[in-house]
Amino acid sequence: MEDDIINTIFANTEDGRMYLSNFRNKEEKNQQSAIAAVNDILEDVRKNGDEALVKYTNKFDSKKVGRDNILVTDREIENAYEMTDNEFIEALKTAAQNIIFFHEKQKRNSWMVTKDNGIMLGQQVRPLEKVGIYVPGGTAAYPSSVLMNALPAKVAGVKDITMVTPPLEDGTINPKILVAADLAGVDKIYKVGGAQAVGALAFGTETICKVDKIVGPGNIYVAMAKKSVYGFVDIDMIAGPSEILIIADETANPSYLAADLMSQAEHDVLASAVLAVTSEKLAAEVKRELLKQIKYLKRKDIIIQSLKNRGAIFIVDSIEKGVDLANEIAPEHLELCIEDPFPVLGKIKNAGSVFMGKFSPEPLGDYMAGPNHVLPTSGTARFFSPLSVDDFIKKFSFTYYSQKSLLEVGDKIVKLAEAEGLTAHANSINVRMK
Amino acid sequence: MEDDIINTIFANTEDGRMYLSNFRNKEEKNQQSAIAAVNDILEDVRKNGDEALVKYTNKFDSKKVGRDNILVTDREIENAYEMTDNEFIEALKTAAQNIIFFHEKQKRNSWMVTKDNGIMLGQQVRPLEKVGIYVPGGTAAYPSSVLMNALPAKVAGVKDITMVTPPLEDGTINPKILVAADLAGVDKIYKVGGAQAVGALAFGTETICKVDKIVGPGNIYVAMAKKSVYGFVDIDMIAGPSEILIIADETANPSYLAADLMSQAEHDVLASAVLAVTSEKLAAEVKRELLKQIKYLKRKDIIIQSLKNRGAIFIVDSIEKGVDLANEIAPEHLELCIEDPFPVLGKIKNAGSVFMGKFSPEPLGDYMAGPNHVLPTSGTARFFSPLSVDDFIKKFSFTYYSQKSLLEVGDKIVKLAEAEGLTAHANSINVRMK
Repeated sequence: MEDDIINTIFANTEDGRMYLSNFRNKEEKNQQSAIAAVNDILEDVRKNGDEALVKYTNKFDSKKVGRDNILVTDREIENAYEMTDNEFIEALKTAAQNIIFFHEKQKRNSWMVTKDNGIMLGQQVRPLEKVGIYVPGGTAAYPSSVLMNALPAKVAGVKDITMVTPPLEDGTINPKILVAADLAGVDKIYKVGGAQAVGALAFGTETICKVDKIVGPGNIYVAMAKKSVYGFVDIDMIAGPSEILIIADETANPSYLAADLMSQAEHDVLASAVLAVTSEKLAAEVKRELLKQIKYLKRKDIIIQSLKNRGAIFIVDSIEKGVDLANEIAPEHLELCIEDPFPVLGKIKNAGSVFMGKFSPEPLGDYMAGPNHVLPTSGTARFFSPLSVDDFIKKFSFTYYSQKSLLEVGDKIVKLAEAEGLTAHANSINVRMK
Repeated sequence: MEDDIINTIFANTEDGRMYLSNFRNKEEKNQQSAIAAVNDILEDVRKNGDEALVKYTNKFDSKKVGRDNILVTDREIENAYEMTDNEFIEALKTAAQNIIFFHEKQKRNSWMVTKDNGIMLGQQVRPLEKVGIYVPGGTAAYPSSVLMNALPAKVAGVKDITMVTPPLEDGTINPKILVAADLAGVDKIYKVGGAQAVGALAFGTETICKVDKIVGPGNIYVAMAKKSVYGFVDIDMIAGPSEILIIADETANPSYLAADLMSQAEHDVLASAVLAVTSEKLAAEVKRELLKQIKYLKRKDIIIQSLKNRGAIFIVDSIEKGVDLANEIAPEHLELCIEDPFPVLGKIKNAGSVFMGKFSPEPLGDYMAGPNHVLPTSGTARFFSPLSVDDFIKKFSFTYYSQKSLLEVGDKIVKLAEAEGLTAHANSINVRMK
């Protein structure tokens, strides 16, 4: 039957959670096996530097990249601009302006607070010094993601941004990626990808400098390599396949809903597009629209596989039930295609990015609106946040006490230190109280 | 010779870095071997829940803990208060007030911004729902750390705080730990530690609820278990041995400097206490003070081993050279025992917590001042930050566009989506532009 492209489920929240947790658990198992593979590569890069880097690049990506041409030259960037049409560059510039506008609002000041007895306490905010950005190659080469990763770092004040991305077989990089990197102010671009690129950024090689933090999406090998080096450097998050949950009421337009489900599904056969709708009639209309619109879409096969295996239409009793579902599954993207989305915002606990109303579809956020499109996936919005300026700063605290203010609390400090058996801690206070 | 207790090194920054990186690299190797051991335990807890939890608790900690008494009862907490002296409780309350005062300043508002054409963008801030706190047992059982981990979560608005801590051999918990947990508002306390406790918090068992984030220090097995579950839940950071760097000029008091070095060294034979001082004469006096004061300290043997193997006095040409050293090694604790510390603050790039002047010794920060004492170690202050309210919140963004404002940028979105080969993304905009 034609409408088998997506399942309809009459569902309460628990069903939704079970449905999604089925394939989320599969992800976790794939992760375990990838970890072993990447650890060998990481160790090799750590020990053998550039030699290992070039070896894996030749093996996995291109035989035309060696130590002497692994760094992208100014000339290559100039060529990339020549190969790229102006309308695209203009659109990218508008996007960049909007991204900068939004992320500027995230900037935080250092602060301090004084007390009447002269005590001064504070928190100093500093940009990270060196950041590495991973950009996938091949079919998943997204110039928009270059902006989304590099611009928040720029806004935060990071002075040294290194980008790594796997070369095409002919040893070149997609020119649109190079243009986006140049517009975003990336300092150095290396033609290297996979776990080997993550290793180079984490440990440094003769050519590539060790960074403080590695951000950016990648396949499961890249994700597991990032997890493996976490602690030696910081990372943004562990990214999984992309997801959307759309909550719709009777006022929603079935054509929009179908289009939005498919825009999510086209990312990946593992992507998950779920609609929670209060109307059975609308659900049926959405199914018809899916079949109508899909004919014209390039990535039809991916969409069908994604919708069949990981998509669903849930019929829910009320918008509240849809919200419960959202809070339960913590979707990466959440569209509120309902008449009045604002009163619902305060009820959302777990989501990566929320799109309010009929005319705020997810691709608006992917490309143009300004909020970051690097978002927590697979339910991690319960605890992870969208990539932001916060990811590119670090904080430290400071404490100033005068002799008098120290004396006022000295006995209590000594009491606590002694209770923990730390007499040298107590001594450090006692020598000052003589 | 007596003064062999610590080495004096005439050093520039590079020497300092090399000196410290020697034992930092050792840490990394220990980590690799611990990972394999903890993964088996984690997998067992994940599969077998409470049964595995009790099995490992009986094996490693106490034979007196089973499923029926793994949760600490109200009665046990009442008893703990009775066993604890009032002065200690009062000191703990003062500390709690100061910690709350400082962390209240870290709270952040949700925000939104509108544009003239009606666009609305924003960032919503939400507390995490469930947090797990790991508290070490045995000799490293620190009530002060209970406050430092639990209170920022409370201030952030976390409603469900679970604490895990390994029982003593007789099946009890240190009463001071229980009192601190109760004062800090911890909701549930379980008598379980090690990798098995981390597994229970990450995956949930019949008794213990899965949490969103696990924080708190522990030994290398706990640290590696946290790393292993990172991504399934969030974690605070990977903690290593404790460190201090003291920068001192001629005005510093050698007795204070010696006391502060030893207060760091007493934590652990792996702890590192380093003094960078501009005066050779003062360095010699510090050495004499070390020998004088150490006699009265309980943890003398640990201090000697720590200072000999991982301590150092660097003679530097100037305070600036000391600052360079700090920025290079990114110490967990940084004391500025210099005449005028404030002009130096702006030059500090990498540190966990900075202590300003003679009367702000590190133990003041460990127990009383208010800033968090859970700090990035082993050079990770380059990219990690002190534990803070930020660790217990998550953010999501939201986007509202009207039809008109979407139409204004629709063509550009379509252009970018098509450039990335994502025609279903373009379609989601196109259906709204008809």
